[in-house]
Formats: sequence, C-alpha cells, structure tokens
Amino acid sequence: MKTSKKKLPVDPQWERRVRESFGRQGLMRQFGAEMGVLRAGECEIRVAYREELTQQHGFFHGGVTASIADSASGYAAYTLMPADSSVLAVEYKINFVAPAEGEMLIARARVVRSGKTLTISAADVFAVKGGEEILCATSLSTIMELAGRADRAGGPVEHSSS
Amino acid sequence: MKTSKKKLPVDPQWERRVRESFGRQGLMRQFGAEMGVLRAGECEIRVAYREELTQQHGFFHGGVTASIADSASGYAAYTLMPADSSVLAVEYKINFVAPAEGEMLIARARVVRSGKTLTISAADVFAVKGGEEILCATSLSTIMELAGRADRAGGPVEHSSS
Amino acid sequence: MKTSKKKLPVDPQWERRVRESFGRQGLMRQFGAEMGVLRAGECEIRVAYREELTQQHGFFHGGVTASIADSASGYAAYTLMPADSSVLAVEYKINFVAPAEGEMLIARARVVRSGKTLTISAADVFAVKGGEEILCATSLSTIMELAGRADRAGGPVEHSSS
Amino acid sequence: MKTSKKKLPVDPQWERRVRESFGRQGLMRQFGAEMGVLRAGECEIRVAYREELTQQHGFFHGGVTASIADSASGYAAYTLMPADSSVLAVEYKINFVAPAEGEMLIARARVVRSGKTLTISAADVFAVKGGEEILCATSLSTIMELAGRADRAGGPVEHSSS
Repeated sequence: MKTSKKKLPVDPQWERRVRESFGRQGLMRQFGAEMGVLRAGECEIRVAYREELTQQHGFFHGGVTASIADSASGYAAYTLMPADSSVLAVEYKINFVAPAEGEMLIARARVVRSGKTLTISAADVFAVKGGEEILCATSLSTIMELAGRADRAGGPVEHSSS
Repeated sequence: MKTSKKKLPVDPQWERRVRESFGRQGLMRQFGAEMGVLRAGECEIRVAYREELTQQHGFFHGGVTASIADSASGYAAYTLMPADSSVLAVEYKINFVAPAEGEMLIARARVVRSGKTLTISAADVFAVKGGEEILCATSLSTIMELAGRADRAGGPVEHSSS
Repeated sequence: MKTSKKKLPVDPQWERRVRESFGRQGLMRQFGAEMGVLRAGECEIRVAYREELTQQHGFFHGGVTASIADSASGYAAYTLMPADSSVLAVEYKINFVAPAEGEMLIARARVVRSGKTLTISAADVFAVKGGEEILCATSLSTIMELAGRADRAGGPVEHSSS
Repeated sequence: MKTSKKKLPVDPQWERRVRESFGRQGLMRQFGAEMGVLRAGECEIRVAYREELTQQHGFFHGGVTASIADSASGYAAYTLMPADSSVLAVEYKINFVAPAEGEMLIARARVVRSGKTLTISAADVFAVKGGEEILCATSLSTIMELAGRADRAGGPVEHSSS
C-alpha cells in the first residue's frame, strides 16, 4: 500500500506521549502486550501466548488480534498528532487470513493517509510460530484527532461529540 | 436491518453445543464475559466493567467491544450450523459510535443471511450506564462454516484451508 | 439496528437541498437512478435494470449496488446537516448476500448515529424480481459533514482537508 | 502489505479467461474502463474522466472508484483460480482518502492471501491529475471461488448457494 505524502510529527515529545498513553490502557496490560518499534507514522505491538487469550480451539482469539491491530493503528496515527490532542478509533475492518497460532502475535500498523481531522491506518498482524512470521490478519482503520484535549489520566474523551 | 428468509437450526442440540464452545474461549473467561440470551440466529454476550478492560481514558477498550461483538456474531451464526461443524470468523467491520462508558457492555448479534458456506451477522453493542442502554458500536461480520469438523476440545481448526 | 437518539433536521429546506444535490450526480443520471422516499435520516434510491449496469453473468454489477447504497447513505445523513454544509463519504463496507438479479434495485439507507462531525448510516439493497423484494446487500458507512461549504454547482469540496 | 506465500496460476489460459470475463461486464463498458496490467495475483483497471461519472461536485463518483477497485480485486483473485470456476465478491471495505479529481482513475489490486475457498485482495485507487498519481482510495475485499462453474456467457452464477 502506497503512502500518499509523508507527514512529519509536529510534537517533539511524540514518542513519550504515545508510549505513556499506551501505558494507561488497562486491556493492553491485562494482555501482557508491549509496544515495540515506534516511528513517525508507524507502531508495533506484541503479545505473547497465554491460555487466557484463546478462542475455543486454543489459538489466539480474534479479539486479541483485532485489539492489538486497533491499538497499533491508533498509535501510529497518534505519533503525527499535536501534543494537546487525543486519538479516537472511528471504525475499522479486519480480515482474518490464517489461524493466529504460535508463541507470539505482532501487529504492525502504518499511516496510509493523515488528514486534518481523520487519519487512515493499515495494519498487518503476524503469528510467530517456530520463529517464522505468518500473516494472520490485515486491517484498515479510520482514526479521528480530537483537538485541544490532551490524552492524560483524568482527561476523559467526549466521544459523543464526534 | 431486514433478515432475508428465516432459517431454522438443524442440530437439536444447538444450544448446548454453542454454550459449550463459548465456555472454551479463554479470552471470554478472562473478560468475565457471559453468554445471555441465545436463540436461533441470535446471541447476546455481556461483560461487566473492570479496570483491566480499559483504554487510556478509563472507558471499555475498543478491543473488548469488538471481541464480544465478534464472538456474539459467530455464535449467532453457529446456532444454525450442523453438529459436526466449526465456526470461523472471516472478517468484520465495526463502527464505534459513542464512548463505551458504563457498568456493563452488551453485544447483541443476529444473523442477516445464512448461506451454504457463509453467514452474515450484524451486531450492536450497548453500554449500560445508570441502567440506561446506549448504542456504542455496530458491526457487520462474515462467518464461515467448516463442515465435518466438530468444534470440540482437541479438534483444532485448520483455518489455513479456508 | 437500533437508532440511538433521533435527530431532527436543522435546515427547513433540507428536502430541496438533498434532491438538488442528487440531481447534480452525473453517475446517478447515467444509471437512470431515482431518489424515492426521503425522510429525516432516511433515503431511498432506485435503479431499473439495463444491460449497461451488469457484471459478467448479466446481474446488476456490484458497483451499481454499492453506488446506490453509498449515495443513499450519504443523502440520509445529509438530510440532518445544516444548509451551508457539504457531505463527504469517508468509508463504507458492503456485504453482498444474494445475486442482484431482477428488474430493479432499491437501496434504503438510514442514519444509525449522527454526531457533530461524523454520521454513521446503514443501508440495505433489495433486488425486485417478479414483484418480490430480496435482500442482496447490506452496508455500513461513515459520512463526514463539511461545515461552511454549501453543496452547490461550482462549490468544489476540498476533500484533501478532511 | 506483505503477501503471505505467493501462489501461482493453475490455469494456463488464465490471462485470456480473465480478460474475456472483464469484457462481459456491461458496467465496465459503460464506464469506458480498460483492463491494464494483468499479472498472476495482480490486476489494474483504468477509467478516463467523463461528466457521466461524477458526483455532485464534478469529481469522479465514489461509486466509480469503488466499482473499479471491486472489479480489479475480483480479477486479481480470478487469475489464480481454475479454468472451470467463477469469481464472486463476498464483501469489501473502502476508505476514500482524497478527492477523485483528475483526468483518469487507476485501480491496482493484488492478492493478499489466496485460500481454498476465499481470497483476500487489497486495492489502491489513484487519481491522475496533470500526470501525477494521487492515492484517493484504498480497499480490502473478500472474494469467493465458485468451483465447477465456468464463468461464461450463459453460465449464471447461483450466488444464493454461497
């Protein structure tokens, strides 16, 4: 997927801001998920296998696959947003293309286009099995910038106003 | 959304089969999720608020919203499938329309169309806040029937053959 | 699909404004499409069968099905927007659930949720065959309001600023 | 987007089969669309600007953008299918990321994963303006192989059996 016009971060503290926001996601902690590579317009999230993350056949649940694709997509977008903004997932679509079977899942998201209000991110999720990465899902997300509302503990997002 | 032609369950044990499969999902146990109403072509899943299920502003994480919508959609489809089949999520799309804020989330899914190989389910997710239900997400899913492979402990699904 | 909180039109001229905008769509004219029922938050578009609208088996092309679902969804949203606004399709997802075979296609769209910037619409497309309506597609769309830019001939929309 | 395992065509006549099927699409003829580059797992469709293809602001209608993305995605998948098969669009999702403004639209689709029954294709649509290509939409499609039913004039597809 070609990226139309590269955008640069406007907030010099973007990396700290993004990692701190990720650190406040209770669900990611619960999953034992970690943020890996983080670049302008790109974000990686990894989660190791645990029985608590499975569907009925013992593979990673599609909900885990989608959750890390969703979070990585939002944070890839958030790297390019201003300091006093929050990020909001508007919607996404995900295709599951192979079983999420293995010792680890890795979601890699990248910004496809970044507009004034909306950003589009694409993500691929890979299952690592015996050291080999297998594409198990691919997604396309729409993310909204909420201007003037820093993403901080205690700074609730009024989603209803979108 | 109109449902085109109503289909009836073909497996007399459909309810037990569906609830047992749900019981094998480690992620749903981890979430403390419960299967509520289950009818032919319809399924409800509920999850109570916990800090472990949040995003960075303390609301339910979109991953929780999507996970229960996904599971409810698959199980609504599974009510209509034969005894020796398994259910596989092919893809879904979800729109987040209001913050998932409240004491409980409820996903309600229904089959829109059930074909020989593929079933389409729609789901709405409601946040219960102060006793009132607010629509917070809506999704559309494609689900595949894997014929001749009962969904049982030890019966791994070869997703790769889809 | 439940509609969360009903919204009322803010522009007393909404019906004329919507029908005039539809009249400027060259593609809809080319298809011979007509706008049917139009209510606050609801829009219907119909197109009669012609060989020019087919895919390789002689049914309506999926592109026709999607185009009228897309236009109906946008105009359902546009009924609720102010006079000096334009409407922009951000994205949609469509499932094709039965062949679009028959003498006519009818798309019926309704607003699921209308926010300050974004509106979510759902649409069902029916094929009319021998007088009977058969659901052939269902879609979910995200639509954006461009404030302060009336949708008029000569008033180009700067999509790039979204 | 990484492609997991490259698949090769199984039908030596795949190119002729695909181009002939495209030639039977009344809608593509109506649009004046042409099939450009065609490789195993890849397909390009181009359409030149005409007033008949516009939305209300004189740009290409989203329905045109989506139609060529949809057709290119299906035909990219069809290159890898056997001689006696037909191709069926199950669903797709498309994001519009910039105005489809210019003298030509080009959809480029590629297979992301090809399974026994289902194929996932991704497509990007570019608007050519003053010789420059600008990404204006990106899509993700699910395509089904109907085995044992050659795609020929007079060979109707029983979509209802999917």
